[in-house]
Amino acid sequence: MKKFINDPADVVAQALDGFAAAHPELRVDTAQRYIARADAPRPGKVGLVSGGGSGHEPLHAGFVGAGMLDAACPGEIFTSPVPDQILAATRAVDGGAGVVHIVKNYTGDVLNFQLAAELAADEGITVETVLVDDDVAVQDSTWTAGRRGTGATLLVEKIAGARAEEGGGLAEVAAAAREVNAASGSFAYALTAATTPAAGRPGFELPGDEIEAGVGIHGEPGRHRERLRPARELVRTALDAILAAKPFDGPVILLVNGLGGTPLIELYLICGEAARYLAERGVPIARRLVGNYVTSLDMAGMSLTLCRATDEMIRLWDAPVRTPGLRWGA
Amino acid sequence: MKKFINDPADVVAQALDGFAAAHPELRVDTAQRYIARADAPRPGKVGLVSGGGSGHEPLHAGFVGAGMLDAACPGEIFTSPVPDQILAATRAVDGGAGVVHIVKNYTGDVLNFQLAAELAADEGITVETVLVDDDVAVQDSTWTAGRRGTGATLLVEKIAGARAEEGGGLAEVAAAAREVNAASGSFAYALTAATTPAAGRPGFELPGDEIEAGVGIHGEPGRHRERLRPARELVRTALDAILAAKPFDGPVILLVNGLGGTPLIELYLICGEAARYLAERGVPIARRLVGNYVTSLDMAGMSLTLCRATDEMIRLWDAPVRTPGLRWGA
Repeated sequence: MKKFINDPADVVAQALDGFAAAHPELRVDTAQRYIARADAPRPGKVGLVSGGGSGHEPLHAGFVGAGMLDAACPGEIFTSPVPDQILAATRAVDGGAGVVHIVKNYTGDVLNFQLAAELAADEGITVETVLVDDDVAVQDSTWTAGRRGTGATLLVEKIAGARAEEGGGLAEVAAAAREVNAASGSFAYALTAATTPAAGRPGFELPGDEIEAGVGIHGEPGRHRERLRPARELVRTALDAILAAKPFDGPVILLVNGLGGTPLIELYLICGEAARYLAERGVPIARRLVGNYVTSLDMAGMSLTLCRATDEMIRLWDAPVRTPGLRWGA
Repeated sequence: MKKFINDPADVVAQALDGFAAAHPELRVDTAQRYIARADAPRPGKVGLVSGGGSGHEPLHAGFVGAGMLDAACPGEIFTSPVPDQILAATRAVDGGAGVVHIVKNYTGDVLNFQLAAELAADEGITVETVLVDDDVAVQDSTWTAGRRGTGATLLVEKIAGARAEEGGGLAEVAAAAREVNAASGSFAYALTAATTPAAGRPGFELPGDEIEAGVGIHGEPGRHRERLRPARELVRTALDAILAAKPFDGPVILLVNGLGGTPLIELYLICGEAARYLAERGVPIARRLVGNYVTSLDMAGMSLTLCRATDEMIRLWDAPVRTPGLRWGA
């Protein structure tokens, strides 16, 4: 295993130290392991907390800041954060208007966020939990009952974050988040597997010219393995899968997401193919974003996410955001 | 070779189509192969043009926009743009106040930008050329006489871009760019080699546990190969090399740059180590940036860049920038 680390056991803690050094504008609690906006809690503002296993950076810590998350809880690599950690983050951002937990649908995350929400309720903090389950590739999977939460998490956090920033109440912010999730679908391809520091070798073996269609962000199996095909064909298959699973009767937000090891030049090529095919299918693109946002360590792979965007969602998408990983208009 | 492409011969052209689809706010001339600000040329503003081989994205196309470059010329993968292409971009952004060419010090780039500058002069466009040669690892290399241009290119483009945006004249903008380059040093490590689409296999072979110290952004050899060591030691060696080569008597801008295939979590860990060691060495960090900015396709690797920053450089660094790859304050 070749990685820029010191000891596999310390990667998450030391990366958190480095995140703090890189982003003095945020508050990093290295003891309780959460990242929060410096101005949290803001009285009267609904707090947004997300989190999950590390290894998907910039998700979630990179999305903490004005207009998006109030706090993020990084677990160990590909491992859920623990309830006490989530509770500490929830407390840190509760401004009296309640807190929304944005939770990717993995069994460990769901369980630990639920426990944290119950502990928060005991302290008088009202929590609304929003599940993200946008991955259309498989119905159930290794670590999930139901669909996995992947690329749409970024859209949920951005749009719900904007709604909270402008003063939306707890029910409104949670509803905005749920609406984005319901309107979104994702599909991913892996060319290679990720190597976790603890395992020291790739999470699965892919023969020389094979790829995994519908892979999950922890390397979970998807629909099947197949021979590598031209990008144009892979993009069409992925978009067909999304368009078959979700109703798309109008403009979309398109996310072309790299899984960590894919060069940006390939993601741009994919974006071009996606734009061409969506035009053929009569699906207008209202907004688009290209980059490595919801990753799987060093996995060479990509995912496409479409969100059927209402005018209101587009308005909230365009609202100012100021985070390490996503920034515009402010 | 596993890549998201259609045909190795069409990668750059198709990625440019995709870039245009992703960034409708910019003007992409796919025939003449340059990317320009939509509002170029701006009368009276000094134009900034850069370019170089593709495969280093977001450099340079991703740095076109308000407060940074006016245009970028992408060559084929790891291949200089051609003079006509550079001339077309220069023409497109000349607002009558002259144009600065920011050129990484590689023989092909230097030659082709020089030819383009001469052709532009024939048309009455005054061009100032600024060479970037920040890589302290080697004095000469495979494709250079003198030091290579690497991570500092981002700093030069940002700071000179801000100076041009606020109305600096041709000599002032060129001087700002040269000052940043002179004040900067970089050093890189590769864990793996990049694979170009044309070659279809890694550019060099690195045995299981070996790394290349001082690698270039095309995979050119650096100082030597060595066994992989803990990140802490690699960071110290890299910073020692930079601090030995350049005078650092005050605050720096620190760039922790991934070479394409390195996960962000490792870059944050590196940032933490760099911050700790610079504190030990008594070098204050004024500003810092962490991410994949000057890449080498899918190479797993990282570079560190330090720029001894004057108050004026920091003021220009903080100025608003609105590009696909770098964005703040606007």
